[in-house]
Formats: sequence, structure tokens, C-alpha cells
Amino acid sequence: MLEQRRIRDFGIVIGKLPTGQRNAITDVEGVRVGHATIKKGDVNTGVTALIPHSGNTFQEKLIAAVHVINGFGKSAGLIQVDELGTLETPVLLTNTFGVGTAINGIIQYMLAQNTDIGDKTGTVNPVVFECNDSYLNDIRGMHVGSSDIDSAIENAAADFPEGAVGAGTGMSCYKLKGGIGSASRLIRIGGKNYMVGMLVLTNMGKLENLTVAGRKAGAEIAANQKEGKPSADKGSLIMIIATDLPMTSRQLKRIARRAEVGVARTGNDIATGSGEIVLAFSTAQRIKHYEKRGVIDIKMLDEECLDTVFQAVAECSEEAVLNSMITAERTVGRDGHIRESLTRYL
Amino acid sequence: MLEQRRIRDFGIVIGKLPTGQRNAITDVEGVRVGHATIKKGDVNTGVTALIPHSGNTFQEKLIAAVHVINGFGKSAGLIQVDELGTLETPVLLTNTFGVGTAINGIIQYMLAQNTDIGDKTGTVNPVVFECNDSYLNDIRGMHVGSSDIDSAIENAAADFPEGAVGAGTGMSCYKLKGGIGSASRLIRIGGKNYMVGMLVLTNMGKLENLTVAGRKAGAEIAANQKEGKPSADKGSLIMIIATDLPMTSRQLKRIARRAEVGVARTGNDIATGSGEIVLAFSTAQRIKHYEKRGVIDIKMLDEECLDTVFQAVAECSEEAVLNSMITAERTVGRDGHIRESLTRYL
Amino acid sequence: MLEQRRIRDFGIVIGKLPTGQRNAITDVEGVRVGHATIKKGDVNTGVTALIPHSGNTFQEKLIAAVHVINGFGKSAGLIQVDELGTLETPVLLTNTFGVGTAINGIIQYMLAQNTDIGDKTGTVNPVVFECNDSYLNDIRGMHVGSSDIDSAIENAAADFPEGAVGAGTGMSCYKLKGGIGSASRLIRIGGKNYMVGMLVLTNMGKLENLTVAGRKAGAEIAANQKEGKPSADKGSLIMIIATDLPMTSRQLKRIARRAEVGVARTGNDIATGSGEIVLAFSTAQRIKHYEKRGVIDIKMLDEECLDTVFQAVAECSEEAVLNSMITAERTVGRDGHIRESLTRYL
Amino acid sequence: MLEQRRIRDFGIVIGKLPTGQRNAITDVEGVRVGHATIKKGDVNTGVTALIPHSGNTFQEKLIAAVHVINGFGKSAGLIQVDELGTLETPVLLTNTFGVGTAINGIIQYMLAQNTDIGDKTGTVNPVVFECNDSYLNDIRGMHVGSSDIDSAIENAAADFPEGAVGAGTGMSCYKLKGGIGSASRLIRIGGKNYMVGMLVLTNMGKLENLTVAGRKAGAEIAANQKEGKPSADKGSLIMIIATDLPMTSRQLKRIARRAEVGVARTGNDIATGSGEIVLAFSTAQRIKHYEKRGVIDIKMLDEECLDTVFQAVAECSEEAVLNSMITAERTVGRDGHIRESLTRYL
Repeated sequence: MLEQRRIRDFGIVIGKLPTGQRNAITDVEGVRVGHATIKKGDVNTGVTALIPHSGNTFQEKLIAAVHVINGFGKSAGLIQVDELGTLETPVLLTNTFGVGTAINGIIQYMLAQNTDIGDKTGTVNPVVFECNDSYLNDIRGMHVGSSDIDSAIENAAADFPEGAVGAGTGMSCYKLKGGIGSASRLIRIGGKNYMVGMLVLTNMGKLENLTVAGRKAGAEIAANQKEGKPSADKGSLIMIIATDLPMTSRQLKRIARRAEVGVARTGNDIATGSGEIVLAFSTAQRIKHYEKRGVIDIKMLDEECLDTVFQAVAECSEEAVLNSMITAERTVGRDGHIRESLTRYL
Repeated sequence: MLEQRRIRDFGIVIGKLPTGQRNAITDVEGVRVGHATIKKGDVNTGVTALIPHSGNTFQEKLIAAVHVINGFGKSAGLIQVDELGTLETPVLLTNTFGVGTAINGIIQYMLAQNTDIGDKTGTVNPVVFECNDSYLNDIRGMHVGSSDIDSAIENAAADFPEGAVGAGTGMSCYKLKGGIGSASRLIRIGGKNYMVGMLVLTNMGKLENLTVAGRKAGAEIAANQKEGKPSADKGSLIMIIATDLPMTSRQLKRIARRAEVGVARTGNDIATGSGEIVLAFSTAQRIKHYEKRGVIDIKMLDEECLDTVFQAVAECSEEAVLNSMITAERTVGRDGHIRESLTRYL
Repeated sequence: MLEQRRIRDFGIVIGKLPTGQRNAITDVEGVRVGHATIKKGDVNTGVTALIPHSGNTFQEKLIAAVHVINGFGKSAGLIQVDELGTLETPVLLTNTFGVGTAINGIIQYMLAQNTDIGDKTGTVNPVVFECNDSYLNDIRGMHVGSSDIDSAIENAAADFPEGAVGAGTGMSCYKLKGGIGSASRLIRIGGKNYMVGMLVLTNMGKLENLTVAGRKAGAEIAANQKEGKPSADKGSLIMIIATDLPMTSRQLKRIARRAEVGVARTGNDIATGSGEIVLAFSTAQRIKHYEKRGVIDIKMLDEECLDTVFQAVAECSEEAVLNSMITAERTVGRDGHIRESLTRYL
Repeated sequence: MLEQRRIRDFGIVIGKLPTGQRNAITDVEGVRVGHATIKKGDVNTGVTALIPHSGNTFQEKLIAAVHVINGFGKSAGLIQVDELGTLETPVLLTNTFGVGTAINGIIQYMLAQNTDIGDKTGTVNPVVFECNDSYLNDIRGMHVGSSDIDSAIENAAADFPEGAVGAGTGMSCYKLKGGIGSASRLIRIGGKNYMVGMLVLTNMGKLENLTVAGRKAGAEIAANQKEGKPSADKGSLIMIIATDLPMTSRQLKRIARRAEVGVARTGNDIATGSGEIVLAFSTAQRIKHYEKRGVIDIKMLDEECLDTVFQAVAECSEEAVLNSMITAERTVGRDGHIRESLTRYL
């Protein structure tokens, strides 16, 4: 990854499994992440794009699943992933009022790549996630434009910045600055190496609950801080899991359910207003849009091997949340609202 | 309703319960429906808006629930309705690639009405449903614009046309012309009258399966028709139930599950590519956005009284599907594709 | 099958697909069904066992899924099938108060076959379905014993009777006599033959709603009948789908969702008190309890081929419900309660 | 509660909210808990009964909800609670192979209390939860008898022991001795006091993951311990939440989803083989079996007030898990298997 100081650079190691080379979701071969950051006065927002594989995602879909931890959210495309168990577009993250524009952006992107969509074949299912960045961003202005969608997709690369960038520009985490974070774990199953990676967009939590590797850091910070009235926990949390392990959508849903475990250890109670949603996909095999065979061969993980994957997911979500905070700089936003950086306190 | 000939005008009566005055979803007090029809050459599409009550839907929400029969669809806003059990915006129906624009349209509409959204309070959850009208419509052109959203909302009234109008302009049903349909039933519970109404957007089914009040009409039509290669069942079906019965969201989900029953009787097998989704809401009580009391009083139906409501829902969905067809005129659309009207055969 | 007159013997043909040789779930290779009928005075109940394959179901599990249409029921074992996507025992059907004994019976049967269960390995998940036969049966007497469980399993065969036998002994359907019914369909995918079969236990419906192949038979019967007060629709409906098509549990859940379609066409509105549950399993491949490989190869159906399977399921459920009635003889039960046979009216 | 030393007696305080008087689920008025402990040689098992209110639970049901965290389990009665949103029996906890007997026991208990069940009215839905205690218990012997069910119910009281008693007799937690644990929290909403209580049956986790109030206690213990081969995480975890807050079943399901949060903080990763299930019920209002009014009045919590309840649930589950361990004495069980007590290490 880039030269940002991440949580491990502060001597804080989460879990026991080895990380991938970048300790990021892009350790899963073919996955890329790009940002478009929109920052000007009261406007602090943006778009983050995740490209799930290097080919044409509509013609060659990936097996996928979603899990809704708390459905107070406006993310798009979930019911089709749930029904068909496949992902067929890049995944976009943005602010709550950018979802419509992000949907349109993905459609335009997919139509340009695929002349058959909406003509000789059916339509396409854009997957878009969101958090509400209105504390730092003039969200009512609806500042995400179609060019930002294009930029985020074009910027996608294996190395990408975290923190207050892209969709993370205006997000808050534990009332400090949050945003984009990532982590990965290397696991061995049946004598082979596999990768589990996670990308998070963090915008949830109360300061006094923040826990860093077991330490009640948030309570310490809060004791020294003169915040005004504590604002309610109105954020959200998006988690995307990628893996090169061959898994069915049922199995991917099972690992998606474990994402919450690691986040709980950072102090999150899943507030009523916090839309927390997980997407999990596997790059191990591709499902063709035009399949000529009636019966196709796929591979799946032996169910007994899932525990290591669960551990990897829990470790990744805890570390990715912390990375989203420690890489995010202090931000002054809308109406002079301020989110301090966790780096100030660690 | 308007002067369209509906299925009852052909002597075909579905079910046993009495209908409301209009035999439409707008028999539920306060519910209004409006259309914007977009029709020009290869463009045959539109928007239909349902206004759930006459007040400010964000400040006073309605109890609601969703049920996904088959999730091959791109409808928006469902997970929040599922989590919180409330509806807080007008409901829009449009074509699959109009969802992003419809989301933006609802947000703009709600922001204009509510200066607190995204500023002093949280965001808003637009509910948008869609079907794929690409057989008759140049869906790739993305012809739904923000002014169409506004028009549909402004046109909302208790009396509204059905068939090839609004979101129904380019839809097909059983390979004949489909679109917007409605029906209602009057039921008595505890000595009081209540209304159950339904609005459907129909775009599913194979001709040979069409069944009209038990008669295999589709097979008869198909035998006399020289269709080319039978196109696959790639449509969708949206059903919206309104009632003035006091119900919890759990109960509304239960009635939403019965919508499928009536549709099955028209010959539908719920094809893999047919996104079939139900929204149900009750106008009986309003949930305030700013509630000052910690505990609030609500009313719910005695569970034992649900069977009559289930019957009403099943009757409404069967009749509303037939109404969507019989009111829809023959349409020549994209690339000269033709959908005949059911009126030609009855 | 045996020499019972079934619905086709009355000239009533449901659907268009060809049936299997027996037109029963046992057309799926390896599936067997057996009954234990308990009938004495006020006691009219029993047990039906479905053996999903000829081997050891614990050591070699089948891919499976469940779908709850209406959860007013006491069936056992569903959440594990949902989580793991596998079936690992015979399936038992019995009356509502026989579930505990049936669970114990399956455990005993599995322990006898597998000395490792509960010792060297984990436990086992018995799958038991039930309907409430108290109209004809002294259900409070809890007359199902462990020997009945054993008998039903031992009696399992490819040819089996339907109607008022086994778990169907005391069941009612549309206020006539119901019970056990079956049907199957042969489908071709990718140039190969596959079988879809269904077993139902019917105990739901109101007489006036009964529809036989589009004809409102129930209304006709009701008009001629002097029933006392119409009893509420308090029954249930269990449907089990077997197929030799290779499918994932997600796909099996999708076909399970279509079982309701055929039943709706017989007049069922899914009453609040009617527990309606579907189990679907595939015999195409076996999942080993002790799997040594971390990654296993499985086959799945191309999603586009599902529509034919959906049609087969809808046809099977409609025909199996009718078979459960037409094969069931008039029964006088508890307190002189009577259920007439549909044969009297057709 | 009784004179057992609980986790607070070791100076370990979980969370910030005040506890109820007993710091147990029985702080919720009317809730009682009783045990039957079966202990003889290789037999180490039992039954725990929770009585939800002091009246007749069938005639006056409580609003309830279930949440399945991981469905590798054999608990009974869940789908009806999910559908109807009510609990109508005492709740039993026992070992996996005791479920059938527990179901029968509840039925017998309910039939004795209610002569209408299965005669003049429908049946009854027994709710039974289980964990697999086969490490310490001869589970294959199926030693739970109907008299144990009766005893557990009869023993129910507001003060009850925790640890290796009742259903907890043979359970393991983090490879130490686990079993029954409880905790409660007092919260104020709208100027009134309300109680949230939890009862857990713990049988999950790996020693090295055990975390006590942020301290990696398990890793420390494991470092000093000469365990043989680490056995897989094959346990389960049952959590029951009671509250006197008025809530709908949708709201109860939302609080049930937060139970996992506190458990994650004790080190649990939700292993594939660990059936983790939550039941939540409210004693605030009773739903009559024979309701004469078509529409009934209920109270529900303002959704915005849920965050405090979520916090209470998270605190309770963390503390109840620790209480289940610290109160449980060292146990030598089947084949000489040993589970040490956590008290030895704290």
C-alpha cells in the first residue's frame, strides 16, 4: 500500500493469522480499488469503486452473497445478489444521496462495455453502498456527479489510499475521523494458500465505546475532550469481503455474518441508525452470462474448513476499522464541524 | 375510476368479497396515484407515483413491510422498510434503468419539503420499484428524466388510468400488453368496514399460461397466433398493497406473502428472471419522525382476523393483474416489437 | 404405484410436462416412502417416512433447502438445513404432538447406524414435519409411539399408497379427506432426462375454495352440503421436493418457493393457522460427513434452466394435492367427526 | 441470587449501565428459572426451564422474536415464534438429544393446564433450545427423562444457581467449564425504569480466544496448559432476553441481533459447528389466545430509544457468558474428560 501509517505501524497487531502482502483487499488477485475525492468548503464527500476482477464482470459474474446486519440503509442491488448469488458489476461506495447517481453511473459504464444489455439480453444489477456523511459534508447539495463515478472506476488499482479519501472523505468513526480501511489474511487449506481481504467504509460508533486491541481508548479520549452534546450514533458501516477461496453463495453469506464479530471488538453496539451491511464475493470461479451447458462444474469449500475463514474475517474487520481511522486526517467540514484524527491520541 | 373498460366490464368477476367504490388502491383513504407517460418512437416508458397519505410522509411515516417473492430485480429502499417497518416517501415505479433517477427525484422532492433532512436529522429512504420494459422501450437510452418524476407525483389523484400508462407504458404481461392495474376489497372486522387495495405493475408471464378466471385463455390465443420464437419470461411484477386496517409490520409482511396466490391463478409460475416484489403499508396510524414519548400506543389486528385480509389480497392481485391487461391498448414499440391487447381476444 | 385411483384416472390432467413412471416422488432414484397407520376408534393418525437415498444419510448427506411459506407450525430441523444446506436423516411426517417422539425415533435410528454420532463426532439433525389432525384424531392422547417411527421407516418402498395412510390418516383437505399425495415430472436439460418429484401431506383449505383443474368444485359441493358451522382453516401443508438435478441449496430454495404456485391453483389462500413448509433436496451428489479434501467439486444447474424446474414443481404440487384427496377414503374420526372423500363428488 | 461468586465478585465489571437487583434475567418481573441436574458417572446433563410469566402462557401469550446467528442447531419452535411473534409456553434448555423429550414434556405440561388445546382449539408450540454436551456427557444414552422436565419447571424461582447446573451441567465454554449464566441491566426511558435481562447456556469457543473484559485470559491459560490435541469448536450458545419494555416482535428481533456483540467481546468467532440462537420476549403486554376484539391496543417503544436497549443487551451477553464460566466448578465427565473452572485462573 501507499505510505500511510497504518495501525500495525503503531505496534498494534490484531489477531494471529499472517496478512497478505499489502494487508488489503487487493491482495486477492484481480481486485482493485479506486477513489474520487470531492472536497471544497462544506463539500467533503466522494466515491470509492471496487473492481472485483480484471475481466468483464457482466459476461463473467462472481459468486457472491450479502448480509444485512442492520438495515437502516439505502444500499442498492442487494436483493438480486441474494437471489442469484452473483455479482455482475463493480461495486461503488458513496454518500447516501449519491446512490441514485452511482446507480446511473454503473449502468452507463456497463452499457458502454456491453451492447447486449437491455437489447439482446436482460438488464444489469448495480451494487452501490452508502453511509451518511452529513456531519462533515453538505449532503443536501448532492455533489456526487457522474464524472466522479467514472474517475473512481478509472483510478482503481491494487495500491490505494485509506482514510479520508473517496467515499470516506466525509465519514466519521467513533466520532473521530473515519473512512476507508482495509486488511487481509493469508490462510492455508488443503495445503494451498488462499487470501481473505476486506474493505470497509466506517461511519459509526460512539467515542466512549472505541476499543483499540482491548484498550478502552475511546473512554480515555472522551475524558480529556470537551465535546458539546454527544451526537447520536447515526452512521453506518459497509464491509466488503473478497476471497479467492472457492465458495458457494451460502458459504459466502456465512462468512459475511462473521464480519460483525471483529467490529464488535472495536466497541460498536450496532446502533439503530447505523446501516451495517456486508458483501462477500469469491474470485475463484466465474459464472458465464451466456452459459451453454445445462449443468456446470463448480468448486466449494468443505464446510469444516470454514472456521479459519471466519477467524480471518473477524481479524480483518477489526483491523480494517482501525486502519480506516488511523489513516484518516483531521477534517473540518460543513458548518465548521470537526473530526479529529485517531493519530492525535495514539 | 376513469372510463376504461375493466375486467368486470367483460363479465368476469374475481372472488367473492365486495369491492371498494373505485375498485382501486385509491379506495384506501388518502392514497393517490399519478402517471408520467413517455412515448415517442422507440421510447415507450414512464413513471407511476403512489402517494401513501395526504400529509408529509417523512414527518409522519406509515407502518409497512416488504416481501420479496423472487429477487431478480433492482428495486430500491427495501432493506430499510424491512428493518424499521416504516415507509417515509412516495413510492415510484418505473423502468429498470430509471431507478437511479427516480431515487434522485424522490430525494429532491423530500429535501424541498423537509429542510431538516440531511441537516438537523438523518437522511431519507426512497422506495422505488421497477420492471424491464426493453421489449417495447429503448431502455438503454435511459429516457426517464427528473421532470417525469415530478409530473408523476403532481398528477397523483384518486382516479387514475390503468394499462399502458406511466410505468406501465412499455410493459408486457403474458406476452400481451400489460402495465398498471388495480383492485380493492371491502372487508368487515369487529363491526367496522376496512379497505384493502392493490396496485400492480405487470411485466411477467408466458402467453400459453395465461388463465382468466379459471379459463386457459392463453393457450387458446397461442394456438391461433403465429408468434415467432417464444421469448423467455424475463419480466417482473410489482405489487403494492394499501389498507386502512391497523397492522404491525409483521402482519403486513404476512399479507404481502399472500399477493402471490392470486397471481398464480392467472397462470404465473414466477420465472427465474421475473423480479416479483410486494410492498404493503397501512394508513391506519402514523409514526412520527420526532417522537417525544419513549413509549407509543398503536393498534394491531387480532391475528385470527387475518384470513379475511388474506382472501382480499388474493382476490385483489388476481383482478389487478387482469385489469392491467384488459385496460392496456395494443402497443408497437422498439424495433417494431408488438404487444397485442387482451381486449382483442376476450 | 398401487392400485388406487388417482386424479388422472378421473380424466383430470394437470400441466403439460410428462410424468415419471410412477408419477410419484419415488421416481427420483433411491427415494422411498413408507407409512405406519394408527387407527382405532378416536385414534386416526400415523407416521410417514421418506428415505432420501439408499445409503447412510449421515455419512453421505444430500444438498437441501427449506422454505417456510407460513410458519404457524412445529416442524423440526429446519434451521440447520437452512444453515448448512444439507439433509442428513430420513424425513418423518406425523401429527403435531408426534414431533417429539419422531425426533427421538430418528435419533435412535441414526445412533444405531452410526456409532460415531455423539461420541467421536457431533450430533445429528432430525427433520420432522407435522400437521394437526385433531379434527379426526385424539391428538391429546399422543398416540404416536417409537415403534410407529420404526415401522414407517421399515415400510419404505418405491411403491407406496396415498391418501388416508401414515401421517395422512387423520388429515383433512378443503374440509374433505386429505392426507398423503404425490406426483412427478420428467424434464430434459442439456440433452439429459431429470426427474422432479413431490410428496405432500395436506391438511388445509376451506371447502368453498377447492378448485379442481380450474373448476370451482368446492363451491359446487358446498352448495349441496349441509355442513354445520364452517370450521376455521386451521390445517397445514407439508411439501417435499426431490430431484436428481444437480443444484445448490440456494437453487433448491428457489424451486421450493414455487411449490406454493400449484397449491394456490387448487384454491388455497394460505390461512394464518396453516403451517405451510417446503423441503427440497437433490440426490445428484453426496456431501461426505468426513471430507478429507479442503475443496470439493460439485455440479450445479445453469440458472437459466430453472424455469422448466419451476414449471415441474408447480405442476407437481397441484397434482399431488389433488392426489392426496382423491385417494383418501371417507373417514369417521374423533367424536364422530366425518370427512367425506372427494371421490364422492367427482 | 444465591451465594455463588460471580464475575463482579472478582472485581470485573462489564459495561456502564446499572444492573437489576439480582443481576439476572429474573429481575424482569414474573420471569423464573429452574433446573433439573442429572449427574451420575458418565452422565452429566440436565434441563433448565424458564417460565416467562406467572400466568397461563398459552391463554396469555407474550410478544417475542428469535434470531438465528448460526443455525447449526436443533432448537424447536422457532419458526412459529418468527411467524406469529408470540411465545406461548415455558422455554426449555437441554442437551441436543433431549429436545424430543423436552417437546413432549412441554406438550404434556400445557395439555394438563389447558383442556382446550388439541380439542376445542389448535395445538401449542413448545420452544426448546439445546447445546451438545457430549464432551462431558454420555449424550448417546439419552438420559433426559420426562420427570426431569417436570422438575425443572417446578423448581423455577426468581433466585437460581448458575454454572454447572440444569442444562449447563455438561456444557463447556472456551474449553473450560461453562453452563448457565445470567445478567441484567436497568434502563430509563421516558422517565421510567425498565429491565433487560439475559439467560445464557454456553457451550462454545476456543480456549486461546477467551477474553475477559479486554484481557486475553485464554491465551495466558493456554500457554500454561498442557492440553492434548485441541478439539474443534463444536459447541453452541443459547441466549434468552427478557424485558418489561413494550416492544413489537420486529423490535425484539432487532435487540436479539445485538446479543452477539457482547459475546464477540469474550472472544467468540461463531464457529461453523456452533449453533447460536437468540430468543427475546417482552412481558409488558399479553396477547390473549381468545381475543374477542378485532383490533387490539398495544404499546411499542419509540425506535429512537432502542440504542440504550442495544447497549443493555450487549453488556448482558458479555457478562452472562462470563458468569456462566466463573460459577461453574471443575467437572470430570464422560471417559474421564475434564473441564477446569475459570475460577482456577482468575
